[in-house]
Amino acid sequence: MTPGFNIADYRDLEPSTRVLMGPGPSDVPPRVLRAMAAPTLGHLDPEFLELMSETQALLRAVFKTENALTIPVSGTGSAGMEACFANLVEPGDQVAIVVNGVFGTRMVDCAGRLGAEVISIEAEWGRAVSAEAVEKALAGKQPKIFAFVHAETSTGVLQPVADIVALAKATGALVMMDCVTSLAGVDVALDDWGIDASFSGTQKCLSCPPGLAPLSFNEKAVAKLRGRKDKVPSWYLDLTMVGDYWGASRKYHHTAPINMIYALREALRIILEEGLEARFSRHLLNHNALVAGVEAMGLAMQVPSEERLPTLNLVRIPDGADDLATRKALLTQFGIEIGAGLGPLAGKVWRVGLQGHSATERNVMLFLVGLASVLEKQGVKVRPAEAVGAAQAVYRAAR
Amino acid sequence: MTPGFNIADYRDLEPSTRVLMGPGPSDVPPRVLRAMAAPTLGHLDPEFLELMSETQALLRAVFKTENALTIPVSGTGSAGMEACFANLVEPGDQVAIVVNGVFGTRMVDCAGRLGAEVISIEAEWGRAVSAEAVEKALAGKQPKIFAFVHAETSTGVLQPVADIVALAKATGALVMMDCVTSLAGVDVALDDWGIDASFSGTQKCLSCPPGLAPLSFNEKAVAKLRGRKDKVPSWYLDLTMVGDYWGASRKYHHTAPINMIYALREALRIILEEGLEARFSRHLLNHNALVAGVEAMGLAMQVPSEERLPTLNLVRIPDGADDLATRKALLTQFGIEIGAGLGPLAGKVWRVGLQGHSATERNVMLFLVGLASVLEKQGVKVRPAEAVGAAQAVYRAAR
Repeated sequence: MTPGFNIADYRDLEPSTRVLMGPGPSDVPPRVLRAMAAPTLGHLDPEFLELMSETQALLRAVFKTENALTIPVSGTGSAGMEACFANLVEPGDQVAIVVNGVFGTRMVDCAGRLGAEVISIEAEWGRAVSAEAVEKALAGKQPKIFAFVHAETSTGVLQPVADIVALAKATGALVMMDCVTSLAGVDVALDDWGIDASFSGTQKCLSCPPGLAPLSFNEKAVAKLRGRKDKVPSWYLDLTMVGDYWGASRKYHHTAPINMIYALREALRIILEEGLEARFSRHLLNHNALVAGVEAMGLAMQVPSEERLPTLNLVRIPDGADDLATRKALLTQFGIEIGAGLGPLAGKVWRVGLQGHSATERNVMLFLVGLASVLEKQGVKVRPAEAVGAAQAVYRAAR
Repeated sequence: MTPGFNIADYRDLEPSTRVLMGPGPSDVPPRVLRAMAAPTLGHLDPEFLELMSETQALLRAVFKTENALTIPVSGTGSAGMEACFANLVEPGDQVAIVVNGVFGTRMVDCAGRLGAEVISIEAEWGRAVSAEAVEKALAGKQPKIFAFVHAETSTGVLQPVADIVALAKATGALVMMDCVTSLAGVDVALDDWGIDASFSGTQKCLSCPPGLAPLSFNEKAVAKLRGRKDKVPSWYLDLTMVGDYWGASRKYHHTAPINMIYALREALRIILEEGLEARFSRHLLNHNALVAGVEAMGLAMQVPSEERLPTLNLVRIPDGADDLATRKALLTQFGIEIGAGLGPLAGKVWRVGLQGHSATERNVMLFLVGLASVLEKQGVKVRPAEAVGAAQAVYRAAR
C-alpha cells in the first residue's frame, strides 16, 4: 500500500446534479438509472438472453432497419467506429472518408491504422460536404468503403445524405455512417437510405449513460466481413464471434456489460414510447427556440441555418467574452454543462447540446437566462428579455 | 417499424435475483448498484476528473503497484487483454504464451491477429504449467513478451508465479499477466512480482458489473509502447491517447463510461474497507468449506489441491448426473448460477465461483444443500448431511 494511503479519504459518491447541455453525455432519465441498478444476471442466463433479443429488436426499430446484425458493441461510441472499420477494412482497401470535423479526422486515423489506403474528401469545418465535392473526389475511383459522419459533433453540422450516398453507391462502395449524435434525435433510416454499416453511442440522443455503441451491418457488409482473407485484427471486436453470441447460437465470446444493457433497453423503451417522429419534432422545436433566443440576445450561430444539427448547436463566442470563464460560471452557478469548440473552432464557439432527455423547454430557457447573466457580468452587451421573449414565442407558436 | 412491432410488448425490467456462483459475473453489492445509478456527470466535469484520479489510486492499491498508467479500460475483461497485446506487440515480435486453458488459447489468437510470432507453451488443461516446461520452451529464445494467465477461469487452476516470471525475465521479455479471476480474490502484487503489464475484469472478485477492464503498465511496458515504429493498430485502445485522458493533461480521447466508473470506485472502496488480506482469507475459507462439503458429499474436485484456485472451483460431474439438467434445476429451484465446463472439460465438470460478494458461508451452504437435493432427484447417491457437517466444521475451526 502506498505510504499515506487511507481508504477513509475516499468519500461516499455524491456527484452534483448537472444539466447536461454539452456534446454528450446528455441527462439520463431516472427510469434508465433505476433499470441499470437492477440485480446483475449472468451473461448466459436465459432471462438475460431474452433481454438481449428485446434490446436488438428495439435497436432495429430506432435504426429503422431489419438488419439481423444489430447489436450494442461493448464499448463507448468510438468502439463502434473501430468495430466498423476493423471488421470491414482489409489491408490495402481503398476507403473514401469525408473529413469536415474531428470525427471524420478520427475515421481517417482509425482506417489508416488498419492498413486502408485512405482517400480523404476534405471539406470546410462547420459546413456540410457538397455532392459536387464528393462526385469530384470519387471520379474514376472504386473505393471499397465510403464513410461519412451524419451529425458532426465537433461542428454542429447535419450532413444531407441522399446525394452523397447515391454517388458512393455508384462506385460500388459499401456505405458506412457515423450517427453518434443523430440517432433518436433527428431522422435516421438505415434501410431506406441504403446505409450498409452504421454505429452510434448511447450517451447522446438515446440518453443512456456512455458505455455501449449501437451498431448495424446489412447483408452486404456481413458478406464483406465473411469474405475476408485474414481474421479481423481485433479479437475483442471481431463481429464473426461477437455476432455468434448475439445470434441464434448464443455462443460465449466475452462477458457482456449486463447492467449497461439493462440501461440501454430502458432508454430505447422510453424513446419508442414517445415515438420517433414526436421525438424528432421535440428536438427541432427546442433547437428553434434556442436559436431564436440566442439570436435575439445578440449572439450569432456558427452554422448556416439549412445545415444546422438540432441536437448540437454552435454559438459564436461574442467579442469581449471569456470562453473558459463563461463555461465555468455556467457550470458552477447554474449547473449547466456546455462544450468548448474543437480544432479550428476552439475558442471561437460554444457547443450547446439538446439531446434526448436534455432537449426540453426548461433547459432552453435556463440556458438563455444563465448565459445572458454570465455574459452581462463580463461586460458583454446582451439582451436577456428579448432572448426569453423570442424563445417563448417559438414555443407558443407550436402549441 | 417492423410490422407487428408494439412497444407495449416490452415489459418493465424485472430480472430475478440470482446467487451468482458461476465463473463470473459475481453478485454485486447493493452499494455498488446504487453508486452506479448516481446522476451522470460529463466526462470532462472537474468533479468527474477527481473521481477518475481516486479510482486510479484505488486500483493501484488493489493491484499493489505504483504504476502511473493504471486505468480501467472502457470495455469488459477481454478488452483489457486486447489493450495489452495491441499496445505492446509489434508485427514480427516473438511472444511466448502459456496455454493450459481457454484464456491462454485466446491470448494466442489475439497476439496472432496482431502479427506476433507466437511461441505456445502448451501444458495440460486443469494443471499449472511447471517451471521446467517454461524453461525448456524458452531455452535459447529471446521473446519480446511472455504472457500467462494467473487464474485460469476455464480450469480452476492458480498458477504459481515466482519461478516462471524469473525464467521469463532472464530472457529479457516483458511479463504480461491475466489476473481477471484472481485480482481482489487471491494475492496479486504487480510490483513485488515484477509484472510489467497486467489486466483484469470488474465482474469477478471485484464484484462490480461487467464493463471495465482494470489495466496496469509499468515504465518498461510504457517504454516499449512509446518506442513502437508504427501507431497502435487500435485507435480505441491506443494507450498513448487513452493514457493522456487518464494522465495529467486530461486530453479528451473517447467518452469514458461514467456510471461504470462510479460503480468501480465503489467496489474498490468496499474491497479496501474490508482489507485485501482479510478478503483473501475469506475467499480461502469459503473455498476450503466448499471443497470439504463437496468431498464429504461423495463428489471429487478436478484440480490437485496444491494448484486449486479458491475463486473458481471445478467439481467433477458424478456418474449418473445430467450436466445441463443439474445446472438448470439449480437455477430455477434455487436461483443459483454455476458454470459449465469448457473445451476438453465440457460435460465433465461444473465451475463453481466464489468471487467477491458471492464468497460467503450462506452461499456455500446453499450450494451444497441445493446440489445434493438436485442430484438425489436424479438418483445419484450423495451424502447431504455429511456435506453440511464437513463444511460447518471448516467454518467452526476458523472462528
